[in-house]
Amino acid sequence: MTRIFLVSLIPLRPEGPSGPPSERSDAARNRERLLQAARELVAEHGVDALTMDMLACRAQVGKGTVFRRFGNRAGLMMTLLSDAEAEFQQRFIFGPPPLGPGAPPEERLIAFGEARIRYIDENGELARAAEHSPHNRHAAPPALLWHRHVELLLREAGVEGDPWVMASFLLAALDPERVLYALRTQGIEVARIEAGWREFAGRLLGCPPHAG
Amino acid sequence: MTRIFLVSLIPLRPEGPSGPPSERSDAARNRERLLQAARELVAEHGVDALTMDMLACRAQVGKGTVFRRFGNRAGLMMTLLSDAEAEFQQRFIFGPPPLGPGAPPEERLIAFGEARIRYIDENGELARAAEHSPHNRHAAPPALLWHRHVELLLREAGVEGDPWVMASFLLAALDPERVLYALRTQGIEVARIEAGWREFAGRLLGCPPHAG
Repeated sequence: MTRIFLVSLIPLRPEGPSGPPSERSDAARNRERLLQAARELVAEHGVDALTMDMLACRAQVGKGTVFRRFGNRAGLMMTLLSDAEAEFQQRFIFGPPPLGPGAPPEERLIAFGEARIRYIDENGELARAAEHSPHNRHAAPPALLWHRHVELLLREAGVEGDPWVMASFLLAALDPERVLYALRTQGIEVARIEAGWREFAGRLLGCPPHAG
Repeated sequence: MTRIFLVSLIPLRPEGPSGPPSERSDAARNRERLLQAARELVAEHGVDALTMDMLACRAQVGKGTVFRRFGNRAGLMMTLLSDAEAEFQQRFIFGPPPLGPGAPPEERLIAFGEARIRYIDENGELARAAEHSPHNRHAAPPALLWHRHVELLLREAGVEGDPWVMASFLLAALDPERVLYALRTQGIEVARIEAGWREFAGRLLGCPPHAG
């Protein structure tokens, strides 16, 4: 229930031609069949190998149907991400502390970064494929929601100068492309990036333990 | 003298087919003529409009010559950037404090970020055009040098946990594409981003003035 509410409140497909309210049940079934086929192809061949042609072929529909449904390849990736993203949003907005409400803002910020880093480790290639332009990367509804969440945590923690700009800097550190580069190309362990984040966010919002 | 030393120590063109040591003077003159034509075209039409065809036409050479010289469009942009980048490197390695040696690491980190933000404001479209892949963005020699510089400043400032990962996070905040998006698309003033950086780096390396 909450998941559906969030997805309709914060649409994940910026260019999607149709959304849940106007879908009839047969259209919804076709959409789910296409998504299922896409998930299978990703599991079998990886995200980079998935093309609109390949999806049309696997789902036994015309290529036009695939394009009408998802707009373009990035739109398809966004839709595939939407379940994972909706669950992530649900956790930081409504879920248990420290990621959800109830913990001090410092702890929530640390938990947010850790959860984002794990999310990128799990969904990263998909997230990178969904980011087809700087506009899409920084102005897509989920990116705006993460920014607002981090900005509010900074305000709550007493950051008085410019929490909006500081939230932008913090989210840059959690950029999927950059985190993926560290994980996959530089071979940095996910636990090391998470520990670095704890130190980073901890220092930013409090006095560091070893400061002079 | 220093500039030439730095450019040859830290080559800016990752794929450049030829470098200064092997160039004869006529080749060097041709190269300078091409770069001058490229600078004129950028000044007249902007970075995004500059193509290899247009450059060949303006400099009255064959298209093959332009490709042999610069490898590809990103290589051309890198070469155009190299004067500005060499000057920036010279300033933070050898220049006067607070950007150069002699100031405390906290002040040098603040000055580094401010200088980077101004550099992006002045050379940004060129910098973005030179970044044609994540590898190029994170592993180009200048990016490695900035990373090493920031990591050393963090160590000097007493960061004990993981200065390498923290330097990655800090450099993410200074990513040209992201800073340009804030400046050009979101309409944020350069002075506001600089002030945000001072607060960000200041909090990270010391106790914030308003902390509880």
